[in-house]
Amino acid sequence: MTMQRKKISVIGSGFTGATTAFLLAQKELCDVVLVDIPQMENPTKGKALDMLEAAPVQGFDVNIIGTSDYSDTKESDIVIITAGIARKPGMSRDDLVQTNQKVMKAITGEIVKYSPNTTIIVLTNPVDAMTYTVYKESGLPKERVIGQSGVLDTARFRTFVAQELNMSVKDVTGFVLGGHGDSMVPLVRYSYAGGIPLETLISAERLEEIVDRTRKGGAEIVNLLGNGSAYYAPAASLVEMAEAILKDQKRVLPSIAFLEGEYGLDGIYIGVPTVLGANGIEKIIELELTTDEKAELAKSAEAVKEVMKVLV
Amino acid sequence: MTMQRKKISVIGSGFTGATTAFLLAQKELCDVVLVDIPQMENPTKGKALDMLEAAPVQGFDVNIIGTSDYSDTKESDIVIITAGIARKPGMSRDDLVQTNQKVMKAITGEIVKYSPNTTIIVLTNPVDAMTYTVYKESGLPKERVIGQSGVLDTARFRTFVAQELNMSVKDVTGFVLGGHGDSMVPLVRYSYAGGIPLETLISAERLEEIVDRTRKGGAEIVNLLGNGSAYYAPAASLVEMAEAILKDQKRVLPSIAFLEGEYGLDGIYIGVPTVLGANGIEKIIELELTTDEKAELAKSAEAVKEVMKVLV
Amino acid sequence: MTMQRKKISVIGSGFTGATTAFLLAQKELCDVVLVDIPQMENPTKGKALDMLEAAPVQGFDVNIIGTSDYSDTKESDIVIITAGIARKPGMSRDDLVQTNQKVMKAITGEIVKYSPNTTIIVLTNPVDAMTYTVYKESGLPKERVIGQSGVLDTARFRTFVAQELNMSVKDVTGFVLGGHGDSMVPLVRYSYAGGIPLETLISAERLEEIVDRTRKGGAEIVNLLGNGSAYYAPAASLVEMAEAILKDQKRVLPSIAFLEGEYGLDGIYIGVPTVLGANGIEKIIELELTTDEKAELAKSAEAVKEVMKVLV
Amino acid sequence: MTMQRKKISVIGSGFTGATTAFLLAQKELCDVVLVDIPQMENPTKGKALDMLEAAPVQGFDVNIIGTSDYSDTKESDIVIITAGIARKPGMSRDDLVQTNQKVMKAITGEIVKYSPNTTIIVLTNPVDAMTYTVYKESGLPKERVIGQSGVLDTARFRTFVAQELNMSVKDVTGFVLGGHGDSMVPLVRYSYAGGIPLETLISAERLEEIVDRTRKGGAEIVNLLGNGSAYYAPAASLVEMAEAILKDQKRVLPSIAFLEGEYGLDGIYIGVPTVLGANGIEKIIELELTTDEKAELAKSAEAVKEVMKVLV
Repeated sequence: MTMQRKKISVIGSGFTGATTAFLLAQKELCDVVLVDIPQMENPTKGKALDMLEAAPVQGFDVNIIGTSDYSDTKESDIVIITAGIARKPGMSRDDLVQTNQKVMKAITGEIVKYSPNTTIIVLTNPVDAMTYTVYKESGLPKERVIGQSGVLDTARFRTFVAQELNMSVKDVTGFVLGGHGDSMVPLVRYSYAGGIPLETLISAERLEEIVDRTRKGGAEIVNLLGNGSAYYAPAASLVEMAEAILKDQKRVLPSIAFLEGEYGLDGIYIGVPTVLGANGIEKIIELELTTDEKAELAKSAEAVKEVMKVLV
Repeated sequence: MTMQRKKISVIGSGFTGATTAFLLAQKELCDVVLVDIPQMENPTKGKALDMLEAAPVQGFDVNIIGTSDYSDTKESDIVIITAGIARKPGMSRDDLVQTNQKVMKAITGEIVKYSPNTTIIVLTNPVDAMTYTVYKESGLPKERVIGQSGVLDTARFRTFVAQELNMSVKDVTGFVLGGHGDSMVPLVRYSYAGGIPLETLISAERLEEIVDRTRKGGAEIVNLLGNGSAYYAPAASLVEMAEAILKDQKRVLPSIAFLEGEYGLDGIYIGVPTVLGANGIEKIIELELTTDEKAELAKSAEAVKEVMKVLV
Repeated sequence: MTMQRKKISVIGSGFTGATTAFLLAQKELCDVVLVDIPQMENPTKGKALDMLEAAPVQGFDVNIIGTSDYSDTKESDIVIITAGIARKPGMSRDDLVQTNQKVMKAITGEIVKYSPNTTIIVLTNPVDAMTYTVYKESGLPKERVIGQSGVLDTARFRTFVAQELNMSVKDVTGFVLGGHGDSMVPLVRYSYAGGIPLETLISAERLEEIVDRTRKGGAEIVNLLGNGSAYYAPAASLVEMAEAILKDQKRVLPSIAFLEGEYGLDGIYIGVPTVLGANGIEKIIELELTTDEKAELAKSAEAVKEVMKVLV
Repeated sequence: MTMQRKKISVIGSGFTGATTAFLLAQKELCDVVLVDIPQMENPTKGKALDMLEAAPVQGFDVNIIGTSDYSDTKESDIVIITAGIARKPGMSRDDLVQTNQKVMKAITGEIVKYSPNTTIIVLTNPVDAMTYTVYKESGLPKERVIGQSGVLDTARFRTFVAQELNMSVKDVTGFVLGGHGDSMVPLVRYSYAGGIPLETLISAERLEEIVDRTRKGGAEIVNLLGNGSAYYAPAASLVEMAEAILKDQKRVLPSIAFLEGEYGLDGIYIGVPTVLGANGIEKIIELELTTDEKAELAKSAEAVKEVMKVLV
C-alpha cells in the first residue's frame, strides 16, 4: 500500500554506467543513483544533472543523482555494477582479474551495508568470475546475484541476422549458453526469424560467420572506436534485466547464474536460460543438449574455472 | 502514398551527435545517418553499430549508419549539425567563431549538395552566428534553417523550478528570448507551474537565482565534467525540434530564427517563440514586451551582432 | 525492497471502466482488477480476457482480471470508481443522486473491507457529491479520496484551443476551478499556448465560445453518440491521476478535493488545483481570485451544496 | 523531402474500428479517418471527438475525424476494413457471406476511388473470402490487399501459453497457418518460450487443450460478453500490421495472402507467414510441412473454398 518509488543504484559512471542510468530514467522505472569514486564525484554529478535536465523534454520524471557516497544508495531495490578497469596493453589477464576482484569486493561491501536485501546485476569483466566474487562477498542468496552477458550476445546476434535476412529485429531471436565472448556457446537451433528456425533460412556457412562475428562482437566495437568499448547495447541489456526484476515480469532471459548441479556443473557462475522476476533468478531452465553442445559448454566452463583460479 | 522511411542525418559524432542519433532511433522516427570527418570514420561506425545492437533489446527498428561520406546523407528530411570545436584555453573568441564558421561552410556545402530541399537544425556555438552562416551558405529559405537554444535553456529552467517547488517537471514551463547563455532573456512572467505564474509561487530573489543558474547552465555542467560539456539535454532538445518538424506537429517552441523586422530586429538570427511544423519555422510569434524586456532583447541582439562582425 | 507489482482496481466495467483498465495495463503501471456486479461477471471477464490477449501484440505484460468478487481487489494501491447509473429520461435529479449514493456506499464498503489503506478516485456523477459520499463512507483521510473532473474539462478545452490556433495540444494548457460541467469555473487568464496567455492569441468572444463548448463538452458527446456518453477522454483523465499517485510524481493537476477553509469554502468537495503524489492530494494550491472569479466559484459551490442536500 | 503526415482510414466505427483508430492515434503513426454509413455519422463523429479529447492527456498529437463521406479518406496510405455484419441467430452462413460480400464491394469501390494506390487490410469475417472479394473489386496488386487473422490467433495462443508457464508473454511466440478460427492450422513445433520449443515445456495433452482454446478463442469472448465480440486484441493486431507497413519494418507476421502456387495452393487467400513492409506483403515464406500439416492445410483450404463458392 506504500507508493514509494523504486530505486536503482548504478555503480560506475563511465559510458556504460551513465547510459544505463539514463535508460532507466527514461523508462520512469525508478529513481537512479549514479555512483563513482570520490575523484570522479564531480563528473558523476555533472552527468546526472545533464540527464535530469533532459527530463522535461523527454517527458520523464524521476530523480537522478550523482554521488561518491554509498549512503545515498540506501535501500536500493537493485544495484547494477559497471565499475572496474578494462584490460590495458601489457597487462596480464591475471592482473586484470585480481584488480577487478579487489574493486568488486570493495563495492559489494558498500552495497550490502546500505541495501542488505538488494538484488545485484554485474557487468564487469571477466563477468563470470566477477559475479562469483560479488556473490561470495555479498552474502546474498545466489538468485539475487546475477551476471549479464547473454542478453547482449543475443542482441548482437539478432542484429546481424536481421540485416542478413532483411527482416525486422523484432522478429529475430537468438540463444546462447556458457561464458561471454570467446567461450560463448551459441544454440543456433533455438534461434529463429518469425518463429522459423534460422538453419532453414541461412546457410550453415553464413550462420557460422554470423556466430563468429557475434563472439567477437565486443572486440569489433573496441576496434572501431579505437579508444573505449561498447556501451549502448550493454546498457540496454542491463536495463532489460533490471526491468524484468523490478516489474516481476517472469522474462525468459539468458543470465549468468550460480549453478549447483544444473547442466552437470557445480559451484560456478555461467550463462544459462533463466526466468527473471521479483526474486531475481526465479528459475534456471535446463535443456537437453546435444553431445556437441555439451562438449562446448564443458569447454566454456573450463575457461570460466581457469579464470576463477586466479581469484585470490 | 509512398511509405518510404524518413531520414535524418546528424553531423558530428561526438557525445551530443551520438546521443541525438540514439534518441532519434529510439523513437523510431526515421533512419539515422551519423556523419563525421574521415579521420573519425571508424569511431563513428562503431557508435552507430553499438546503437544498432541495442535495438533488439530496446525494441526499436530503424537503420543507423556511421559514415564520413556525405553521399550517404542523400535526401535527408532533416540535417542536424552538432559538429565544430569547443573553445580551448588560450583561444580567442574570434578564433573560435572563424574556425567554426569554416566548419559550417564546408558541412553546409556537402549537405545541400545531397539534400537540396532539406531542413537544417544547428547546435554549434556561437549558435546564433553559426545558424546565420549555414543559412547564407545553404541558399535554403530562412524557415528551413533553424538554431537550437531555447528548448535547452527552458529545460534547465524547468528542472531547477521543479526541484525548488517539489513539483513534477511535466507541469512546469519556462520561456526565453534572445541569445543563448549569458545573453538569454528570460520571460519569467510567461513561466508557470500547473498554469500558475511562477512569480506567485517563488520569491523574486529566489527566481532571480534560478534564472542566473539557467544562464550559466552550460558552464555548470562543463565545470562539473571537468573535460567536456553537456550532451543529454542538448540532444533531447534537438530531437524535440526535429520530431515537431518530421511529424508536422505545430509545436510552439523557442527557436533561433532569422528575423526580418519582427521584434524590431532585422537580418539576424536570434531566439524567439515559433511554431515548428512540416515547413520548418511556420510562424514567429510576436509578443508585446515590457520596456525592460525590450532593452534586454536589444542588448542580446547587440551581443549577437558583435559575434557576427567576426564572421569573414 | 519488495518488488511486488502495484495493483489498481477499477469498479464498473462499462465503457469508461474498461477503457481505464486497458490504458492502465498498456502503461504497465500495475496489475488491474476490473469489477462489476455479479450479473455482469461474464462480460467483465470477457473484456479483461480480450485486453489480456492484446498484450502480446501491444507489448505490455501485466495481469488483468474481471470479477464480481471484491476479495480479488485485496490490497489495491488505488481504486477507481466508474460505476453508477446515468440519468435516464424522466428520472429526476434527486433520484439519480440517491440511486448513485446507494451504489457508492455499497461499493465503498467493499473496497475498504479489502484495502483499508487505499486511495480512491471517483468519476461517478454528480461527482462532487459522490466523492463526498465515498469519503464519508470510507473513513479514509480526505487526501485519499479524490474526484475527477478538471483533468477532463481542461483536456477538452485544450483540444478546442489547439484546433482554433492550429497549434499542438502538447503546448496548450487550461485551468478550471469549481464543479464539473455547467458549474465549471474556467480561469482563462491561467491558460496558455506555448506559455503565451490565450487572451492575447484569441479574441474574448471566441474564447467565450470555446469555454462554453467546454462546459457542454460532455453533452456534446452524448448528443453525437445518441446512446451513451464519452469514455476515451474520461478514462485517460483517470489514468493520469492514478499514474501521478502511483509514481509519486507531484503532478499539478486539478482535482475534486475536500475543502476545509481553502478558498473560503468548508465541508464540501469541489475542483481546485492540487499536487498529486504518493499520499494522494498532497497539497491544495490556493490562488488569489478576482472578484468575478470569487463570485463564480461561490455560485459553483452553491450548486454543489444543492446536490449534497439531496444525499440521504 | 515532403513531411506530410501519414493517413490511415478505418472503415467501420464499431468497437473494433473505433479501438483500432484510437490505438493508431496513440502511437502517433498517422492521422486517422474513422468512416461509417451516413446513419452512423453522428456516433462516428462522437467517438472521434472523444478520442481527440484524450490526446492532450495521453500525450499524442494527430488528427482524428469521424465521417460518412469517403472523400475524407482521400490519399490514405492504408485503409483498414472492419465493417460488416456479424452472424445473427437464424441467419445462414450463406446469407452472412453474401451480405458481407455486398458490403465489401461497396466499400472497396469507395476506397479505391479516393486512394487508388493504397494498401488495404481486411478484418471482416469470413475473412479469407472477404479479403478475396476486396482484392477482386479493388484492382489493386495482390500484395496490397491483406487479411488479418494469424496475428490475433497467435496473440491468443501466446497469452494462454504465458499463463500456463507463468512466463512473460513478451518471450512466448506462436505460429499458425490456414484459415481463421476452426480451420486454423497451428504449428506448435514453431512455437517457443524464450526460444525453447513449447513441446519440451508443456505436455502434448495440455498443448492440445491450449490449441483448442485458441481455435475457439473468438467464441470464448463472444460467449462471455453475451452480446458482441472481441475488439481489443483484434484492433491491436490490425495496428501491428499497419505499423509494419507504414514504417516499412519487414516484420515477419502471419497474413492472409493471395496464393499462386505457394504451399501447393492457387487462387485463394489463406493464412501464411509473410514479410510486411512498405510494399504490403513483400514476401511469402514457404515452409517445409510435415505430412500431417499438409493434410491439415489442405483441409483448411477446402473450408475456404467452400465459403468462396457462396460468393456471387
